[in-house]
Amino acid sequence: MTKASDRTTLTRLPEYGSDDRAALDRLLDEQVIGHVGVVRPDGHPVIVPTAIARDGDQLLIHGSTGSRWMRLVADGASVCVEVTATDGVIVARSAFESSFRYRSAVLFGRFSRLAGLAKEAALDVLTSRLIPGRAAEVRRPSAKELAATLVLAMPLAEWSLKVSDGWPEDGAEDVAGDAWAGVVPAAPPAYLAPVAAPGLRPGIPVPDSVRRLAESSGVARGPVGE
Amino acid sequence: MTKASDRTTLTRLPEYGSDDRAALDRLLDEQVIGHVGVVRPDGHPVIVPTAIARDGDQLLIHGSTGSRWMRLVADGASVCVEVTATDGVIVARSAFESSFRYRSAVLFGRFSRLAGLAKEAALDVLTSRLIPGRAAEVRRPSAKELAATLVLAMPLAEWSLKVSDGWPEDGAEDVAGDAWAGVVPAAPPAYLAPVAAPGLRPGIPVPDSVRRLAESSGVARGPVGE
Repeated sequence: MTKASDRTTLTRLPEYGSDDRAALDRLLDEQVIGHVGVVRPDGHPVIVPTAIARDGDQLLIHGSTGSRWMRLVADGASVCVEVTATDGVIVARSAFESSFRYRSAVLFGRFSRLAGLAKEAALDVLTSRLIPGRAAEVRRPSAKELAATLVLAMPLAEWSLKVSDGWPEDGAEDVAGDAWAGVVPAAPPAYLAPVAAPGLRPGIPVPDSVRRLAESSGVARGPVGE
Repeated sequence: MTKASDRTTLTRLPEYGSDDRAALDRLLDEQVIGHVGVVRPDGHPVIVPTAIARDGDQLLIHGSTGSRWMRLVADGASVCVEVTATDGVIVARSAFESSFRYRSAVLFGRFSRLAGLAKEAALDVLTSRLIPGRAAEVRRPSAKELAATLVLAMPLAEWSLKVSDGWPEDGAEDVAGDAWAGVVPAAPPAYLAPVAAPGLRPGIPVPDSVRRLAESSGVARGPVGE
């Protein structure tokens, strides 16, 4: 549930606000990238895009121990995570009323480090989110790889969701005029056919996970030149 | 040009860093959404996604005078604007080496308000960026609409660009193994066929700008139910 707070109270277009946790989950489960904002020690904001995966009531991210930004976030800095889907263009009868169809979530809180089995399990969730089924096809992470990776979790506690899924809202004078109005929907994100790495040993077939990922987009666009 | 600063020095994966201004421009001109981060008066970060348009050496955004966030940004708060394209999934022979192909720009600076003719011209640039040709098809903004809109510009002065466009970089032991490796490219963002607004007066054809926008995606997917 949305925890009401000054940070999650929408002051602009509050009619677009939603406290539908299922809708939040759908957005987080559908988008692979989140935008993580943090205040640097010098007081300036910085945003880093990173892979996200929802695991129940928490959001997972991971990154290198060599990343200054990851260490800042891992140390419990106050963060904002923004996740947005652009669903189309609302073409109004005026430029002023034209806008996007979108779903945008903003989550506030602090990440904390996962360790041990929870860390390994979270890495599997992140891998599975990006390429469903892949975690079971590859070797387990080595101790060295685990040591080089920070895996962080943040509770889905304080968040807001804004959904614009309507039509142009032109005034009566514009509606009576000659200008067209409608929506140009965005196509869902899609993948093209997989391309083998230049150094791949001959005879290794495309694995099921990768085949399904490319097919899941539902768009047959043919192979890409290899 | 990249202005070298502590904020634009890449400490992580510096080999992905690029100071190619033309590549920055291509990314900004291709993406319609930027993620604008700012530090709130209470010290916490907040990110708002918004339409962006590059106009020469400056980045334009706009929004409502009723938006608390827009007013904060308009008053010259230090901002970070992040713009990212996800170009594909790099499927390595291990989960650890798997990642994204992406292009990600981070710009730092402060926005300032545009007024008068510069403001109107910038609004046309924003409209044209979203729907090329649309500005010439619709009426001019009214004085009331202009008064309700903040139009802001930030110079492209301090930025960094990170480009990951390669292949899996597995170690020799994994390369000799049985796991597949390659890339699943993301399809370019695409639009579906335009849908007329429910209240559209009969007899108004789809305008050229909207027709071109839907066709520009290069994907014939047929009309959407109206």
